[in-house]
Amino acid sequence: MNPTLFVSRQLVVDFKEKLSGILAHAPRKLDVLEFTPDLKLTPEQQANIEVTFYSRDIWQGTIKTRLSEAAQVYWPIVDSAPNLKWLQVVSAGSDQKPYQPSIKRGLRVTTSAGANAGPVGLTAVAGLLMLSRNFPHWLRAQQKREWAPQLGAASPLDLPGQSAVIVGMGHIGKVIARALHAMDVRTIGVRRNVAPAENFDEVVALSALDSLLPTCDWLILACPLSAETRGLIDERRFRLLPKHAGFVNMSRGEVIDEAALARVLASGHLRGAYLDVFTQEPLVPESPLWAMPNVIITPHNSSTGTGNYQRGVEIFLRNLEAYLRGDEKLENEVERD
Amino acid sequence: MNPTLFVSRQLVVDFKEKLSGILAHAPRKLDVLEFTPDLKLTPEQQANIEVTFYSRDIWQGTIKTRLSEAAQVYWPIVDSAPNLKWLQVVSAGSDQKPYQPSIKRGLRVTTSAGANAGPVGLTAVAGLLMLSRNFPHWLRAQQKREWAPQLGAASPLDLPGQSAVIVGMGHIGKVIARALHAMDVRTIGVRRNVAPAENFDEVVALSALDSLLPTCDWLILACPLSAETRGLIDERRFRLLPKHAGFVNMSRGEVIDEAALARVLASGHLRGAYLDVFTQEPLVPESPLWAMPNVIITPHNSSTGTGNYQRGVEIFLRNLEAYLRGDEKLENEVERD
Repeated sequence: MNPTLFVSRQLVVDFKEKLSGILAHAPRKLDVLEFTPDLKLTPEQQANIEVTFYSRDIWQGTIKTRLSEAAQVYWPIVDSAPNLKWLQVVSAGSDQKPYQPSIKRGLRVTTSAGANAGPVGLTAVAGLLMLSRNFPHWLRAQQKREWAPQLGAASPLDLPGQSAVIVGMGHIGKVIARALHAMDVRTIGVRRNVAPAENFDEVVALSALDSLLPTCDWLILACPLSAETRGLIDERRFRLLPKHAGFVNMSRGEVIDEAALARVLASGHLRGAYLDVFTQEPLVPESPLWAMPNVIITPHNSSTGTGNYQRGVEIFLRNLEAYLRGDEKLENEVERD
Repeated sequence: MNPTLFVSRQLVVDFKEKLSGILAHAPRKLDVLEFTPDLKLTPEQQANIEVTFYSRDIWQGTIKTRLSEAAQVYWPIVDSAPNLKWLQVVSAGSDQKPYQPSIKRGLRVTTSAGANAGPVGLTAVAGLLMLSRNFPHWLRAQQKREWAPQLGAASPLDLPGQSAVIVGMGHIGKVIARALHAMDVRTIGVRRNVAPAENFDEVVALSALDSLLPTCDWLILACPLSAETRGLIDERRFRLLPKHAGFVNMSRGEVIDEAALARVLASGHLRGAYLDVFTQEPLVPESPLWAMPNVIITPHNSSTGTGNYQRGVEIFLRNLEAYLRGDEKLENEVERD
């Protein structure tokens, strides 16, 4: 028996031609073992699994602490496949709990970073524009069938000419910068390795953050969660922002002090916030953030979009070809310690 | 006594230096007559008015059928100033009722087109993005403190790769096209004189509209109201759009058949609509549009922004210099029949 590629039946059906083409032309043999939620494996089948893809149809969710029924069957198989060498995951980040055993035992792990970047980035821009134009005011008036224009002193500040600090210059940060640049917003990228980048007017190191905050109009988080970014924006940093600044979090809830953000907003500091991610998900019903008049909340769902499945599988298929060819580096490969 | 420039006291205070500089260096003499809402003019003062600016501080509103108190004093003076030669108005269009007597008696009339284009264009983009990502769903869930992701079949269609037909390629249409282009939306401009334009992938004549609608994902109106555009989008044209298409109106309510739009939306055709303008303003409380789940309404207020006053006055001051120099053509001059 050959080693196997362990992927969902759905994926095999949807990408039959491409997948069989890659396997047929590969320099070595890899059979397909189809995952279905009712699957029972023999010890030999379990032992033969070499490659697996935690695809969108197995994942099925947006709650980091709750696994879909399919995923509850999938992960125990993966975690006890003794000869597994490579795991590709559906998400952009590698920080999720189910991936940690694979990372710990030193498997190659690759993510789908970039597949969802378009939807996430444009949703961030939507949230920023909504705050910038104070859409929450208009939407409340609409609910009451009230014609309530914002005039005079209630007019919002002009967006063109304002500056946005974008922490994280990966796929998502780039989509955001490109769109904002076309609205004449000054874009300042923050990353570890400082180097010029398209659509960023300036690029600075994370260590320069404190000096940037007092003059920026928008703070946008689009970085991965890491030891460096955990707790990055605490109460002190929120208060370094000007009173009129807006905040957008597309990263992870753990990158900010969520309770501090609520306090800062309640005190009248900051123009508002758009949040897609939270320390605890689902966001608990008691959170004061839900009902704040200048807070927009989406359920870790900014990535939703019809094209993600296709784009994610395409990354996997490119990686599969590279893996079978024996390439040293795969796309979106997580660095091992 | 010299002929006069009839402008609000507020304007004279706010732009003292620039205004007196222009008047001091002009090739001919023009005195300033300050407007205040309690003003009483002598027949001679009335006769001396040569130039006037209907500025933002006199206008003070967003309701086309209701004049501010200041405007109720201002217009009778303007309309009975026998030697008035040039009127500059605060709005981007020249279709508003108070301007018509001046247009009829053959005065030079100039608008502030362009001053508000940034805010209006970016608000259009905000509304389009909100519809594209189905923010109305998320916002309803937020109000109920519900974590309700859009997944699977409920995922919204990807914006990149979609096409937007933008009717009107003036200042507002250009702002919209530039932003959408940076989101990989295919932009198709519609105007009278077909010629290539930056950030428009294609430019077509108004007569080609029917052939464009069945394949476009977004229809955006950013044209002036004119004999040609009045009633442009009727029920037949709304139904030519694909079922999934979205509609954005930043033009004038009279450019569409508003009742037809409500019928079309109620029938499940169209993904949704963002409307800033209406046939009757304020939009009547009985309108079904207010409560439709996929309709976003703003009170003819998309132009609101802190920079408009400054930008509008700058257009007026440039025109004032040109007028005093005796230029044949002023900026934003309305064509006379």
